Amino acid sequence: MDIICIRRTQLAEESHRQDSVNLLTFILLLTLTILTIWLFKHRRVRFLHETGLAMIYGLLVGVILRYGIPSTSYHNKTPPSCTLQAGPVSTVLLNVSGKFFEYTLKGEINLREIHSVEQNDMLRKLTFDPEVFFNILLPPIIFHAGYSLKKRHFFRNLGSIITYAFLGTAISCFIIGNLMYGVVKMMQVLGQLTDKFYYTDCLFFGAIISATDPVTVLAIFNELHADGDLYALLFGESVMNDAVAIVLSSSIVAYQPTGANTHTFDASAFFKSVGIFLGIFSGSFAMGAVTGVVTALISLLHLHCFPLLETALFFLMSWSTFLLAEACGFTGVVAVLFCGITQAHYTCNNLSEESTKRTKQLFEVLHFLAENFIFSYMGLALFTFQKHVFSPIFIFGAFIAIFIGRALNIYPLSFLINLGRRHKIRGNFQHMMMFAGLRGAMAFALAIRDTATYARQMMFTTTLLIVFFTVWVCGGGTTPMLSWLHIRSECKRLDQCPIIQIILASSFSPQDGAQSEGQSKTKQESAWLFRLWYTFDHNYLKPILTHSGPPLTSTLPACCGPLARCLTSPQAYENHEPLQDNDSDLILNEGDLTLTYGDTAITANGASSSSGDSTSEDALERELDTREHELLSRGTRLVFPMEDHA
Amino acid sequence: MDIICIRRTQLAEESHRQDSVNLLTFILLLTLTILTIWLFKHRRVRFLHETGLAMIYGLLVGVILRYGIPSTSYHNKTPPSCTLQAGPVSTVLLNVSGKFFEYTLKGEINLREIHSVEQNDMLRKLTFDPEVFFNILLPPIIFHAGYSLKKRHFFRNLGSIITYAFLGTAISCFIIGNLMYGVVKMMQVLGQLTDKFYYTDCLFFGAIISATDPVTVLAIFNELHADGDLYALLFGESVMNDAVAIVLSSSIVAYQPTGANTHTFDASAFFKSVGIFLGIFSGSFAMGAVTGVVTALISLLHLHCFPLLETALFFLMSWSTFLLAEACGFTGVVAVLFCGITQAHYTCNNLSEESTKRTKQLFEVLHFLAENFIFSYMGLALFTFQKHVFSPIFIFGAFIAIFIGRALNIYPLSFLINLGRRHKIRGNFQHMMMFAGLRGAMAFALAIRDTATYARQMMFTTTLLIVFFTVWVCGGGTTPMLSWLHIRSECKRLDQCPIIQIILASSFSPQDGAQSEGQSKTKQESAWLFRLWYTFDHNYLKPILTHSGPPLTSTLPACCGPLARCLTSPQAYENHEPLQDNDSDLILNEGDLTLTYGDTAITANGASSSSGDSTSEDALERELDTREHELLSRGTRLVFPMEDHA
Repeated sequence: MDIICIRRTQLAEESHRQDSVNLLTFILLLTLTILTIWLFKHRRVRFLHETGLAMIYGLLVGVILRYGIPSTSYHNKTPPSCTLQAGPVSTVLLNVSGKFFEYTLKGEINLREIHSVEQNDMLRKLTFDPEVFFNILLPPIIFHAGYSLKKRHFFRNLGSIITYAFLGTAISCFIIGNLMYGVVKMMQVLGQLTDKFYYTDCLFFGAIISATDPVTVLAIFNELHADGDLYALLFGESVMNDAVAIVLSSSIVAYQPTGANTHTFDASAFFKSVGIFLGIFSGSFAMGAVTGVVTALISLLHLHCFPLLETALFFLMSWSTFLLAEACGFTGVVAVLFCGITQAHYTCNNLSEESTKRTKQLFEVLHFLAENFIFSYMGLALFTFQKHVFSPIFIFGAFIAIFIGRALNIYPLSFLINLGRRHKIRGNFQHMMMFAGLRGAMAFALAIRDTATYARQMMFTTTLLIVFFTVWVCGGGTTPMLSWLHIRSECKRLDQCPIIQIILASSFSPQDGAQSEGQSKTKQESAWLFRLWYTFDHNYLKPILTHSGPPLTSTLPACCGPLARCLTSPQAYENHEPLQDNDSDLILNEGDLTLTYGDTAITANGASSSSGDSTSEDALERELDTREHELLSRGTRLVFPMEDHA
Repeated sequence: MDIICIRRTQLAEESHRQDSVNLLTFILLLTLTILTIWLFKHRRVRFLHETGLAMIYGLLVGVILRYGIPSTSYHNKTPPSCTLQAGPVSTVLLNVSGKFFEYTLKGEINLREIHSVEQNDMLRKLTFDPEVFFNILLPPIIFHAGYSLKKRHFFRNLGSIITYAFLGTAISCFIIGNLMYGVVKMMQVLGQLTDKFYYTDCLFFGAIISATDPVTVLAIFNELHADGDLYALLFGESVMNDAVAIVLSSSIVAYQPTGANTHTFDASAFFKSVGIFLGIFSGSFAMGAVTGVVTALISLLHLHCFPLLETALFFLMSWSTFLLAEACGFTGVVAVLFCGITQAHYTCNNLSEESTKRTKQLFEVLHFLAENFIFSYMGLALFTFQKHVFSPIFIFGAFIAIFIGRALNIYPLSFLINLGRRHKIRGNFQHMMMFAGLRGAMAFALAIRDTATYARQMMFTTTLLIVFFTVWVCGGGTTPMLSWLHIRSECKRLDQCPIIQIILASSFSPQDGAQSEGQSKTKQESAWLFRLWYTFDHNYLKPILTHSGPPLTSTLPACCGPLARCLTSPQAYENHEPLQDNDSDLILNEGDLTLTYGDTAITANGASSSSGDSTSEDALERELDTREHELLSRGTRLVFPMEDHA
């Protein structure tokens, strides 16, 4: 008995030590990546993005682990097996010489993998549970994306973004799925396919590979300070189509079991899938928005004196959105995205300045770590993942298919969108959107989620290669592509260092320099729907959910007087200054916008419909934003004396 | 086959949803706690500390889960069991109708618990893996403790702290162990004990229950701004004895197997345990210090322009200390503690102001969340943990034993320490240290780590009750006790709100108000060992590891010239201002200290040996510290006009 007890302790210790070593590998990898990122930033190396760098380091470590280290398996024999009559259950008891041990289900395992279990235990251990990606690493990335969405440009292009994200992703998914089905059929004819590959598998592949990645786009465009509208279009599309891809792929999986025997088209199952898609998507959206609103209401309490409590509360509420959605069977990542947007819109106004900064920085760090972790893990997975199925035809076909899929998404939809847009999406923007269709973390996470069957393993390998290619080639080529397409010339990264920002700020008075270029692009598409939404938001939602906005007593009809008085916070009455709201751009016309951009004072500039007011933080933030914008746009035209600053 | 496949997917989904619900329970619990903390802070309720509050909420939720919700077990039968001949292994394959499923070892299970498995699956699921406490929740708490240790008071009392922490904990452990062995013998005579309870079990109980908790002490004393030396003694002791308790308990466990059959005293095994204790402790200490130094060296690079990278690097390096120590078989928590102290001493000086703030805030949030999580989990565990063994005699005996153990730790050791101290630890300080010996997170984490045997289950239950009692009664009674012992009267929490801090700062010019009380207590014990260390640190380590301190070229002998030039950072030469180093208090005498306290200017005040210089941030921080101290000590004597500020 005691021997068994010691054995168990030793096993647990050994396993714990192994876990520590594995995690340590990743952390040292991240440390190395950060140091190199710093070196690259310091030396202004631009041809490789940090996510690409993380992947390269991951690849190197993967190669070392795979070929450099002798197999360190600590049980050299095949694990003992025993036979059970019932179906798989989550918990099993094992009777070992009279003592009972509890075992939990880890997953199904193929017969041919049983051999690999014994071969390389360490590589297997390095392979994370895919749920880690969905439950731990993706939420902060997606939340941060939603939270840092630049509202002005985003709402102005909302119609186009939604079109690209929903219709475009569906088109891309369907086209890729069908093209790949052709490839698969061809492979079957050529005898290259050894296992089953259904039509739904192809559609699933289309769904997972259609989601463009916000991570790299965000990072590159943020650094380049490229055109605001293009950025909003690309980033908005990639954030929203992540959500679409998740729901789309799970709808396809839900479709699959019904047709499991036939795998042919079934209209009722198809409509069921569409129903599931709409249900999950709208449910997740509603859940995110509702918890965002609840957080806004909680943050209305006077927590200002305790920034730590505010930050902790904000963090917990955002996380609970994710969990709540998952618990209800919706998609946590989608809910978290909309929660982030809602938080940025309402809650953020209620937090103290200190908390706003803290919260932003907290999510920035989390996002940075999670993002780099995912990308280095991708590099690592190419060598440590043990179920790769490399099929040259499939991979080649997939590259062609995603190209065609992307082209048939962007160009026809841009044509359609341009019919309705006052300010057209120009040709060079369309080419840029075509080029910047990187695949990244979401495609990887969806592909690794299920690698049980042969088809899924082939998809996973192909997805990995597509991600590598697009991140390295398209990601690295973004800067040259932008200049080639004459979208905006690259500005040197002098603005990064606070000292230089101060020098810059003091060197140029804010009055000089009229905005020559980029102004014509800020024309907005203020459709009636958005005017309606803006008015509703400004008159009713903002007053209820934040301390800003006009008092409800002045916006609600007289009959609702008592209710209005009850819901209006005391601060709302104090906000007498008619400051400009930072969403009011939505309903400004072009002339006013030029004024706003050129103006750095905090006062309102007599915009036609900017009757709203907002907190002074808003105005200050906006002013800083504007000044930064000015300095940077000037940065492209001036040669700075500190160009050679180390 | 497809049915099995669907079954597996459903199982995984069901399990995932269950996990989400469980985590959501905790997060909502935390949210509730935070809101109540805010309410308490807002209304200035002082009788209950926030950790006590978290426990109460945990208890309530535990009661609801236990008795309010019908058993939601989704497999209503006993889990299937199968027989295996070999010993327990980490992985087992199950053959279910031709398909293989992989199962991982969760733990041993008693025969009588098999029944409870089927009864309440949800409660079982709510019980966390104890390793979560050690690997995820404790590290940020302990790191934050080390990082926020107020260096001046800590180093001044280092001798006393080490005596209490090492000798005191050992005494307490031995006394409690022996007293409990008496209790156990008595229970055996009375027939109250149904299972085995060895002498080593009693010693183990002594080890886990001897560690006083830094969490509550830190929080209460920080808020009360009580005497710096008392705070340093109590906090230093509780931080260090956490480390001692971990290593002590694992040494006792290591001792156990050898004497497993006899459970009697064995001299060789005893010395082996002592050797293990010293080895693990010094190894962990060295590892923490070394990684701290490595981080300091890395942070010497010019990362200042990129606060995000700095913060991320700092976070990763601190975490890797933990993992490295665990991977090497040392104690991660101990390594992280010393890493935190080293980081605060060296690395912190090299970070940019922005990063210092970010890092501090990041760890503050992590620490806050982890701490509150642990305490609410403790409350929850009283009702949801299903293996409680309540033994009134054992519990009563334990309460008596910890009282005696604490008394025989504090009073005799204080007498011995006072023989060597120039400034004695007064009687009221000793009573306060006696009273403030709260047991908290560490005792709980150590107790929950292994609850396989009957003895361990009884210990766990007793530990839980002791933690409840000490946190509620001693924690809540700290404030009255401090006034009763005339240590320092409570000052109102007006200093919390930034606005009031500004008013306070502007209302009183820094020159008025001589420091009447508390000055005599700041006398330091500047033993020769610390003088030696200080000189070494100031002349050699600080110049190498930070940008501050005198250039090595001036401190190293002439023969080491080239080496010194190579190791000195360019900034060191630029630090010409002879500013006062914030550790120089160590070797100041009392008169100088009074000057320092009364002085708010940044200039050096002619202290006998304060020839050092440091960065201006140091001096500024110090000045702020001093001013805050002044304002607060005045806070006790003045009635503020904004007393009724809501």
